[in-house]
Amino acid sequence: MNRAEQIRLFLEPRSVALVGARRQVGKGSFNALENLLNQGFPGEIYPVNPHAEEILGQKVYHEVKCLPRGIDLAVVMVPREAVLQAVEESLGRGIKALIVVSQGFAEADNRGRGLQAALELMAKEAGARVVGPNSFGVINAFRRFSTTLLPSPRDQVPVALVSQSGGLLEGFWGFSFGKAVDLGNMCDVDFADVLGYLESDPETRVIAVHMEGVGDGRRFIEVAQLVSQKKPVLVLKPGKSGKALQAVASHTGSLAGVDLVYQAAFRKCGLIRAENVEELGDFARGFLQLPPLNGNRLAIVTPTGAGAIMAMDAMEEQGFALAELSAETVSRIGEFFPPWAPPSNPVDMLFAGMAHGYGRIYRASLEAVLDDENVDGVLCIAGSPSLKSIKGIAEGRSKPVAVWLQGGLDEEVLARIKESGYQAVFPSPERAIKALAALRDYSETSVIRGTPCSVPF
Amino acid sequence: MNRAEQIRLFLEPRSVALVGARRQVGKGSFNALENLLNQGFPGEIYPVNPHAEEILGQKVYHEVKCLPRGIDLAVVMVPREAVLQAVEESLGRGIKALIVVSQGFAEADNRGRGLQAALELMAKEAGARVVGPNSFGVINAFRRFSTTLLPSPRDQVPVALVSQSGGLLEGFWGFSFGKAVDLGNMCDVDFADVLGYLESDPETRVIAVHMEGVGDGRRFIEVAQLVSQKKPVLVLKPGKSGKALQAVASHTGSLAGVDLVYQAAFRKCGLIRAENVEELGDFARGFLQLPPLNGNRLAIVTPTGAGAIMAMDAMEEQGFALAELSAETVSRIGEFFPPWAPPSNPVDMLFAGMAHGYGRIYRASLEAVLDDENVDGVLCIAGSPSLKSIKGIAEGRSKPVAVWLQGGLDEEVLARIKESGYQAVFPSPERAIKALAALRDYSETSVIRGTPCSVPF
Repeated sequence: MNRAEQIRLFLEPRSVALVGARRQVGKGSFNALENLLNQGFPGEIYPVNPHAEEILGQKVYHEVKCLPRGIDLAVVMVPREAVLQAVEESLGRGIKALIVVSQGFAEADNRGRGLQAALELMAKEAGARVVGPNSFGVINAFRRFSTTLLPSPRDQVPVALVSQSGGLLEGFWGFSFGKAVDLGNMCDVDFADVLGYLESDPETRVIAVHMEGVGDGRRFIEVAQLVSQKKPVLVLKPGKSGKALQAVASHTGSLAGVDLVYQAAFRKCGLIRAENVEELGDFARGFLQLPPLNGNRLAIVTPTGAGAIMAMDAMEEQGFALAELSAETVSRIGEFFPPWAPPSNPVDMLFAGMAHGYGRIYRASLEAVLDDENVDGVLCIAGSPSLKSIKGIAEGRSKPVAVWLQGGLDEEVLARIKESGYQAVFPSPERAIKALAALRDYSETSVIRGTPCSVPF
Repeated sequence: MNRAEQIRLFLEPRSVALVGARRQVGKGSFNALENLLNQGFPGEIYPVNPHAEEILGQKVYHEVKCLPRGIDLAVVMVPREAVLQAVEESLGRGIKALIVVSQGFAEADNRGRGLQAALELMAKEAGARVVGPNSFGVINAFRRFSTTLLPSPRDQVPVALVSQSGGLLEGFWGFSFGKAVDLGNMCDVDFADVLGYLESDPETRVIAVHMEGVGDGRRFIEVAQLVSQKKPVLVLKPGKSGKALQAVASHTGSLAGVDLVYQAAFRKCGLIRAENVEELGDFARGFLQLPPLNGNRLAIVTPTGAGAIMAMDAMEEQGFALAELSAETVSRIGEFFPPWAPPSNPVDMLFAGMAHGYGRIYRASLEAVLDDENVDGVLCIAGSPSLKSIKGIAEGRSKPVAVWLQGGLDEEVLARIKESGYQAVFPSPERAIKALAALRDYSETSVIRGTPCSVPF
């Protein structure tokens, strides 16, 4: 079994043992069995609890030793003092993949560090792999599988998150994923292992990494270089400040290291660094929704001159150039514009739109700049009612159109985004332009790209 | 009539003439009369159009010359070549406040610059004030009044926006206002005038400024210094890059000037600069919702260690210190925490919450740090279901609690925010911490503060 096949056991198990399954069910119970049943996991589930015969209609095993052989994955959720025995017995039943959810290991104290070292050794000797300890485990919406203790139904989004945090598996505004692994303290399975699995995973088109410490740095660089040639790999790496570095040690027992070293390594591997959780979501949506950006010349189509000015500041910061519109483009839409303000880039279409029909001029302007060979990509500034017009125009084009969605955010706007199927929308010009910059930077090195795809916002 | 009284005519008119009211009504018609009627403006409306007898049941005047005397405000929406005559006739009817919506003035060409100069002179000689040209005018939700051409019902939020853009009157995600003025080309009424009115306006608690150029810089500084002592004044000033500076000239005919000069002036005046539209909204929500932050020591209450680490990076960047919890606080909540991870700051309450009841430990932790005299303010990391618990705890406290709301953003989350009445929520730790930094920086200079207030998100 190669490494990728080993990791597949964690994400696509046919059978799973829940060692330390809770009897308490319902809200606030953090019951992994209940969550698994609610999600409709189609595989076999083997709950283990010494004090129960049945939980939620499922037969319960009193001891790990009583489990049948041939189970793909064990999830260990017992107090830390009971972990080693549970793991030993699981290994005894031939289980080769273990997620240790329990806390109190290298992130805690000396006793915990000792327990973690023993756990690592035990698994290694048995040829088994361990995710954790101190891990919420995995999510795989494509198999309706999740070991997390919180109910979090997931859509089948072709984004995978590899994290050192269970909390981040809750997701962020504008960021969704279909697969996730919380590596926790990372005593064994690490980023390189999971990236290796995701490299050829047909259900993953974009990989997002949340990293506190890298573990085996050399192997990570080797693997990440290969993977990033096939799929964009986004990295969120906190822990720049002194206090945060200390906190990393007590969170996952990782050494966060000097940020500049990481930055250089990421660049070498072709990884795309996100500065914060919002950028992670922005970049992921951009890569999923938009075609590659093969060039540096942007056009802006806007009903607001003030907005265009903000966008131009952001463009300069990201090294973009304002495209010079071709004579053909200018003459094509020129008739709609007042003589004292002929079309140029940014294309400020407000006056023309008010005179000749807003939707009509919007579409005409967008089509004209998309057809212009001097234009590599487009920033479109729009209110949410205009999303419909934009959608049709961007479809099937080889140039990306990112949208700064103006106006307030409410239920109606969210519904319009969903209806339009167009999620390359951003709440500020800066964020739209940075997402385009990520596309551009990746286009320069990428090999394989998929087709645009609709995801839940 | 002093300056503030002059500006009041624009925002609180008892009667308004719409010079160039459109006959076309309905979607996409940009009909100012229709918008005014839809909003239920209780004052008198005098539409002027040479080709209509009646629009939407309102009597129409064929000429400005036929209007009765004593009208507070004229809104001029005719083609640029007809503007001077319309203004002259309005002045002839004794109107002392004019909004010129028409475009094609100093932002356009030489002809436009000439027309603008003539307009300015004409109004000055008559002792009248002009907003614009190239302005969408004003919004005042407290009087159900708006001259904007787009239907945009507004809630009575005690935030006022003074802008050089009509497009920005559409608002942004997370930013709402109850009053707004689009100064457009700013041939007469400028930032200082409107700030002077807002200084003592009881319906305004936070002032947001979008500035492309300042006009009379000396007077602005004088007025802004006074106003910022009474109410927080937030400033968004784009136009840092070379291309953007050129675009400013063709947008509102302003000279954007060197950014460093503006930055120094803002600091001198005690203004709070927002880097982008999202920060403008974040800061406004922070000031509306939260009590002052009188100190630099923050506590973090979190169910995710990874999130706390991101927050600590942001805190260091903003010059915050991690509060050292008092012995009393540690002993008060210590019993819930495992011996290998006693409570410290950040207070990571996940394990304790899973063992002793999530909501209970959340509340206990928050209450303990709020009672701790070593703590000046709190960052709370929470999923949206926890908003209810947080709300009750933050109420009536003299310390601010900012929330990083984890998880995805959807209709349900928006509804939970609305239900909770708590809008000091932010989509990332960086934005929550920057909002707290704005509070802290302002507290050092402020004199008068209101009580927390609920606004639409």
